[in-house]
Amino acid sequence: MQGALRDACRHVLGEAVRVTGASRTDAGVHALRQVASVATASGLPASALGRALNALLPPAVRVLDAREASAGFDARRWARGKRYAYLIDEGAVADPFLRRFAWWRPGRLDRDAMAKALAPLRGTHAFTAFCAAPGLARDPTCTVRAARLAGRGDRLVVLLSADRFLHHMVRNVVGSLVEIGRGSRPPEWLGEVLEGRDRRRAGPTAPAQGLVLVRVLYPLETAP
Amino acid sequence: MQGALRDACRHVLGEAVRVTGASRTDAGVHALRQVASVATASGLPASALGRALNALLPPAVRVLDAREASAGFDARRWARGKRYAYLIDEGAVADPFLRRFAWWRPGRLDRDAMAKALAPLRGTHAFTAFCAAPGLARDPTCTVRAARLAGRGDRLVVLLSADRFLHHMVRNVVGSLVEIGRGSRPPEWLGEVLEGRDRRRAGPTAPAQGLVLVRVLYPLETAP
Repeated sequence: MQGALRDACRHVLGEAVRVTGASRTDAGVHALRQVASVATASGLPASALGRALNALLPPAVRVLDAREASAGFDARRWARGKRYAYLIDEGAVADPFLRRFAWWRPGRLDRDAMAKALAPLRGTHAFTAFCAAPGLARDPTCTVRAARLAGRGDRLVVLLSADRFLHHMVRNVVGSLVEIGRGSRPPEWLGEVLEGRDRRRAGPTAPAQGLVLVRVLYPLETAP
Repeated sequence: MQGALRDACRHVLGEAVRVTGASRTDAGVHALRQVASVATASGLPASALGRALNALLPPAVRVLDAREASAGFDARRWARGKRYAYLIDEGAVADPFLRRFAWWRPGRLDRDAMAKALAPLRGTHAFTAFCAAPGLARDPTCTVRAARLAGRGDRLVVLLSADRFLHHMVRNVVGSLVEIGRGSRPPEWLGEVLEGRDRRRAGPTAPAQGLVLVRVLYPLETAP
């Protein structure tokens, strides 16, 4: 996404620019409202830039809104939070319409156990146990503001909101949570893994295609 | 779809079989609950056949249910009705998640005018004006049981239910309906085109990707 946006920006603005996305997404992960910033000397109005970018970008990437931001705005550094959703398709047969947007994992998961397991994640903790490359994260501390389940029928959604996320953090939490949902581990296990701060104790990483970046949050006064 | 299903059936059943789909869908058209019939001498239980087919079929095609039907059942000839939905994305920017499932047509359409236009379609009429190849349809008579709008925000859904549909009938109705929704034609025009029985008087054909076959209906006593 970032490469396609950078190429399109360079083409429209006629200058080499750097595009900064609020969140890097792995291949297969989708974003509903990703935010990106670009600094340019061009006098092109933001709305005209948005329309020009949509004419050049591949159809899988759309600029929903383009606005002039405060001086020095950086979509990544200024972000104060993100919300992710992870969709699980529990149906006996995989829904063809969801195959790019959900983890197909047939069989009913225990929602009560999963909801109970999520509780200790809320608040400020070192999420080392759920980080793909713990050695690379300078600071493993994240403040989780919301961790809950949603969905209906055989669609289950895990919602996580935090000030920041470590690499593969949502997918690692979901992978462990599903171990609890299928009864392989008790609900208390998720909190124990968190406290243990050891990646090797956590469950497998859930596949990329179920993950979607739902929103990037900024302080009200700087919101672009 | 039919070709993929036939090949998979032949592989599982070990015999040359004919697969009959209730409805032929154009390329780009989706189906939520297509029904197909196959006659076989194999003693394989239907549920085992369904599972085996899903192991062989491409992920875009899934067998949701497989059952033994009454002798002579033919998914196409025994069908007594079908329901179609046509999705229009009215957003100023095309929703990337809907690009395979909706017609992106930016700008608000007049729902009141469209709802009024749909009314004369209900009941039994010759739908020659909305048939792609009127000369080929031996009988242009269809009984429309429901013709209405649904949706919210900038997603508009046109719902049509009838005992049968002619070639491109839904897409032709929607193409003309949108002419009314955007104010190029008055609401009465759709009924006039219907009565005129002349394909050349109708509007353009709406693109395939917005159309989805929602349900195939059978008489209760023969439902597979």
